[in-house]
Amino acid sequence: MICSHGEGKHAVIIDLTDMRIPWAATSAPPDRSWGSRAGVRELALRIGFDMHFDVTGPAPTAFLLMLYAHPDVAPQLDAPERLAVDPALDLETFVDAFGNTCGRLVAPPGPLRVSHAGVFRCAYENEPQPEPSARQHHAGELPTAALPFLLGSRYCEVDRLSAVAWDLFGKLPTGGERVHAINRWVFENVRFGYRLTRPNKTALDTYVERTGVCRDMMHLAITFCRAMNIPARYVFGYLPDMDVPVDPNPMDFAAWMEVYLGDRWWTFDPRNNVRRKGRILIGRGRDASDVAMVTSFGGPALQTMSVIAEEIPA
Amino acid sequence: MICSHGEGKHAVIIDLTDMRIPWAATSAPPDRSWGSRAGVRELALRIGFDMHFDVTGPAPTAFLLMLYAHPDVAPQLDAPERLAVDPALDLETFVDAFGNTCGRLVAPPGPLRVSHAGVFRCAYENEPQPEPSARQHHAGELPTAALPFLLGSRYCEVDRLSAVAWDLFGKLPTGGERVHAINRWVFENVRFGYRLTRPNKTALDTYVERTGVCRDMMHLAITFCRAMNIPARYVFGYLPDMDVPVDPNPMDFAAWMEVYLGDRWWTFDPRNNVRRKGRILIGRGRDASDVAMVTSFGGPALQTMSVIAEEIPA
Amino acid sequence: MICSHGEGKHAVIIDLTDMRIPWAATSAPPDRSWGSRAGVRELALRIGFDMHFDVTGPAPTAFLLMLYAHPDVAPQLDAPERLAVDPALDLETFVDAFGNTCGRLVAPPGPLRVSHAGVFRCAYENEPQPEPSARQHHAGELPTAALPFLLGSRYCEVDRLSAVAWDLFGKLPTGGERVHAINRWVFENVRFGYRLTRPNKTALDTYVERTGVCRDMMHLAITFCRAMNIPARYVFGYLPDMDVPVDPNPMDFAAWMEVYLGDRWWTFDPRNNVRRKGRILIGRGRDASDVAMVTSFGGPALQTMSVIAEEIPA
Amino acid sequence: MICSHGEGKHAVIIDLTDMRIPWAATSAPPDRSWGSRAGVRELALRIGFDMHFDVTGPAPTAFLLMLYAHPDVAPQLDAPERLAVDPALDLETFVDAFGNTCGRLVAPPGPLRVSHAGVFRCAYENEPQPEPSARQHHAGELPTAALPFLLGSRYCEVDRLSAVAWDLFGKLPTGGERVHAINRWVFENVRFGYRLTRPNKTALDTYVERTGVCRDMMHLAITFCRAMNIPARYVFGYLPDMDVPVDPNPMDFAAWMEVYLGDRWWTFDPRNNVRRKGRILIGRGRDASDVAMVTSFGGPALQTMSVIAEEIPA
Repeated sequence: MICSHGEGKHAVIIDLTDMRIPWAATSAPPDRSWGSRAGVRELALRIGFDMHFDVTGPAPTAFLLMLYAHPDVAPQLDAPERLAVDPALDLETFVDAFGNTCGRLVAPPGPLRVSHAGVFRCAYENEPQPEPSARQHHAGELPTAALPFLLGSRYCEVDRLSAVAWDLFGKLPTGGERVHAINRWVFENVRFGYRLTRPNKTALDTYVERTGVCRDMMHLAITFCRAMNIPARYVFGYLPDMDVPVDPNPMDFAAWMEVYLGDRWWTFDPRNNVRRKGRILIGRGRDASDVAMVTSFGGPALQTMSVIAEEIPA
Repeated sequence: MICSHGEGKHAVIIDLTDMRIPWAATSAPPDRSWGSRAGVRELALRIGFDMHFDVTGPAPTAFLLMLYAHPDVAPQLDAPERLAVDPALDLETFVDAFGNTCGRLVAPPGPLRVSHAGVFRCAYENEPQPEPSARQHHAGELPTAALPFLLGSRYCEVDRLSAVAWDLFGKLPTGGERVHAINRWVFENVRFGYRLTRPNKTALDTYVERTGVCRDMMHLAITFCRAMNIPARYVFGYLPDMDVPVDPNPMDFAAWMEVYLGDRWWTFDPRNNVRRKGRILIGRGRDASDVAMVTSFGGPALQTMSVIAEEIPA
Repeated sequence: MICSHGEGKHAVIIDLTDMRIPWAATSAPPDRSWGSRAGVRELALRIGFDMHFDVTGPAPTAFLLMLYAHPDVAPQLDAPERLAVDPALDLETFVDAFGNTCGRLVAPPGPLRVSHAGVFRCAYENEPQPEPSARQHHAGELPTAALPFLLGSRYCEVDRLSAVAWDLFGKLPTGGERVHAINRWVFENVRFGYRLTRPNKTALDTYVERTGVCRDMMHLAITFCRAMNIPARYVFGYLPDMDVPVDPNPMDFAAWMEVYLGDRWWTFDPRNNVRRKGRILIGRGRDASDVAMVTSFGGPALQTMSVIAEEIPA
Repeated sequence: MICSHGEGKHAVIIDLTDMRIPWAATSAPPDRSWGSRAGVRELALRIGFDMHFDVTGPAPTAFLLMLYAHPDVAPQLDAPERLAVDPALDLETFVDAFGNTCGRLVAPPGPLRVSHAGVFRCAYENEPQPEPSARQHHAGELPTAALPFLLGSRYCEVDRLSAVAWDLFGKLPTGGERVHAINRWVFENVRFGYRLTRPNKTALDTYVERTGVCRDMMHLAITFCRAMNIPARYVFGYLPDMDVPVDPNPMDFAAWMEVYLGDRWWTFDPRNNVRRKGRILIGRGRDASDVAMVTSFGGPALQTMSVIAEEIPA
């Protein structure tokens, strides 16, 4: 999601050193062990994006960018990401409240291009999924970092959807089985369509309308999980079309979710409902309102955007 | 606001070291210079609270507490705050995404009491207010830490109230004069009443209903400021009745707001619309959804709460 | 529901003759045959109400009253209803768009009392209910008068609750069985409570909150019926406590609903979910917004209201 | 607005005689006196429409049509309207709760065409407008038929916009001057755009978004009038482009409003804010939810629609 707001006048240099906050502290360290696992080869992905803006004036406009591989996975890049900015402008980076790497720049009126190309390496294998028996934790035993992901948030009305969630999933065993059922229910009952969303669409809207984009589907599944006392968070990033039918639509970033069961976070994707290879995390938060890709404090229009994430042939 | 949600089972020790995040980085250092200023004496305040909960079972319940003086003002306490918890339970502290000190505990079923008493020292003088000519910054020159406070948030629908804000305040000079006008408009047009709120009341609701508690009045004033491209944030804390008519209602914590003009944050209080002495900041965020005093992940009822903040006679 | 709005100045005599409109045209004629049915005795009910208002000035206030037995059942009264109005004021009657008898008066500032006492006779037997096999009509074969009761209305968001209705009831046989299931679902899943409502509460709100008064329960059940293409309308009137446990609360008017199956309208009451004796219809419409008992165009407060509907001992 | 809902099976003949209801009873009789007024010539208009539907099956679908000149103006037609229906189907007519002439038909699956062509005669002169001094009535002196048009309705949240209305217009003289000011405010502040609406857009939405189609502009102006205790109702019909710049968009039906001042209803049109010639009333109600042009109880898609209303050259 691209947000824009306000106006700007002249640039100020900001010195913000990298820092980590507790909410991101429970992530697993990046896994680089695939080379030593029998039968698992490396997957090398060419990733990147190219965004063209038209900054309307008269004042310079500030931008916040959430377009870097997340610190949890950044070590799997061949080289640290440096976004290309044209015209050449100062680009400061900082880590936000949820542990996401962000950039900030101030652009004068006129065209602005922000782009990146890099290589990301991971195991050529499907992402893990918890067993149906994976254990659900009581709030008292959850890490503090997971607690905020039990609460309602802007697009996830946990209180409003609580009775519905219990109707649909309350008779199933707790833990992995419930989360798999939630994932399946959203996949089967919410029809995907690019035009079937709107900026203020909430989980309850998606529940009653049964339509949406990946963002809406995540909000609904996340809300159901939280209503069942299972921490769930919203994430987005690159999702290459590995070993799945080719999607004829232009590639875009994708949203998915992470759910806490059995002492760790797991990836779930009710938009696709299959285990995938090569997801690359960019941003993580309570819902889409925490992870805007680009926020502009002025009126620049995004002119074009292209995204790539594809295997580099051996 | 007290939030409760979910259920808990048994306690887990969490080791979170103190850390500061960028959004809080622009605060001024605490002012201890009053002793050297002519005619300014010290104000010593006895502060504290006493909360009694009834934790329903069967599982232990996790609590998040935002009840500590904010790190920006904590040096003005006579002694570091240690909350009293009965029964004796582990109480871990951490700093959240907005720089607020928080506590976490896991309580077994039964009564729970959390209380505190301390002494806070500050200058006996009214809080400063910006001149009407105080300068409003373009987004491009704002510190990164201020940018999130230009955007819409859960209770502050900046996009929905933008046309209204421009109607009401768009013809006034920018900067201090606009902020004073916003403050005055909310004070004069929104009727305060304890029962005139509800958990999901937003700034737009308050605008059309013209009633609310301090929380609602802040959300409306904050939304108007942001709509005019002025950073504004929601805060709460102790507000002693110094040199104002005695309020016959029992003392409670109070909400106010902070607005960024002329390279610094200023306190504004459209609930009272007078400069006060002795405010003590506890929590700071985008709106009330970021600064819940107590969040319980289970069904405990707050039985009673008392708050004090009063001058210690010389 | 009592509505009030606006202000008034002086009275105007209105001459409106009784008239009937198509939407009410399919009602069954009143049944007076109980005397000839074996084992069915007559039930004589004393009915009435007493309302005290305080009309604030300075101008006279117009009132619309929907407090007469509906023309469909009025023949079962011992005498035509004449409301007592104190002070003596002109009271004009007319029939509204839905076939309900209404009154209009203009009251000067000061106390106003509107009251009535009468006797109503019906069979001492439970109201009929359709068989589970009762036939559901396609819209093409419905009488025109029933068609509006298939559409969404102010409190009944048929479009929003359509997917939910099909989830819950779509696998059951059409017709009587679905309606009985809807009735039972609302009775079992929505908790009744006098304080658990609010003026703008809709069917969707009731669905997600699972609480409400009879009005809210009807709106939800009506919305489910319409979503399944079954005409349903909102009604209110007297509901005596015949052969049911005594309700300790003061008697009030009650809402129920009517559903069209097998070429006729049937009474359903998901608030009570039992067949009752002695209901007396007053108002009928699409939802509560069509059948306000008292609408005042000014600011008078209803001071007290009492309602009776009880058997006259033989 | 075209509504569709439900499904149908086979046709039933309905016998509904014409009838009038009180809410429409205060309309002025049609004016045929222009021939005798100095300098006023007759305006003859060719009017009509052509609608093509594709009725999806499998069952027949019921349609309600509000496409006839309103009884108040029907005497100005050269001949009584008979809609052409292809294939030939029974078309029953009735008058609805607001005095509008409606049709009902049941169509089998397949193409359906409903069309009409006629001639309407009126004075070639601008519609009258009340003086700024036109008197506003207290509710107590209004005819009963006008009272419902003081209350909130589905798209007109009178209670929510009351404070705003008083802010904007409360200092102006009552009566004609307020209504002209409301009309002008909506014209000047709400930007017209065909895509800037949605089915559930309310007056409050239009107020905060400042965009909409004629329907939305009427809802806002009507709500402001009612909030000031001035009866206002929603109407739609033919609006020929007489003596105004040619609108390059295809002709459509148009919505406007009627306001009660000085013992009569007056036409106002905040979409255009000029006095027009040749408006032909079709439907009248509290808001757009009462006057759907076509309501289909099934899933037929409107394929194409054309409307004409143009002067017949002498």
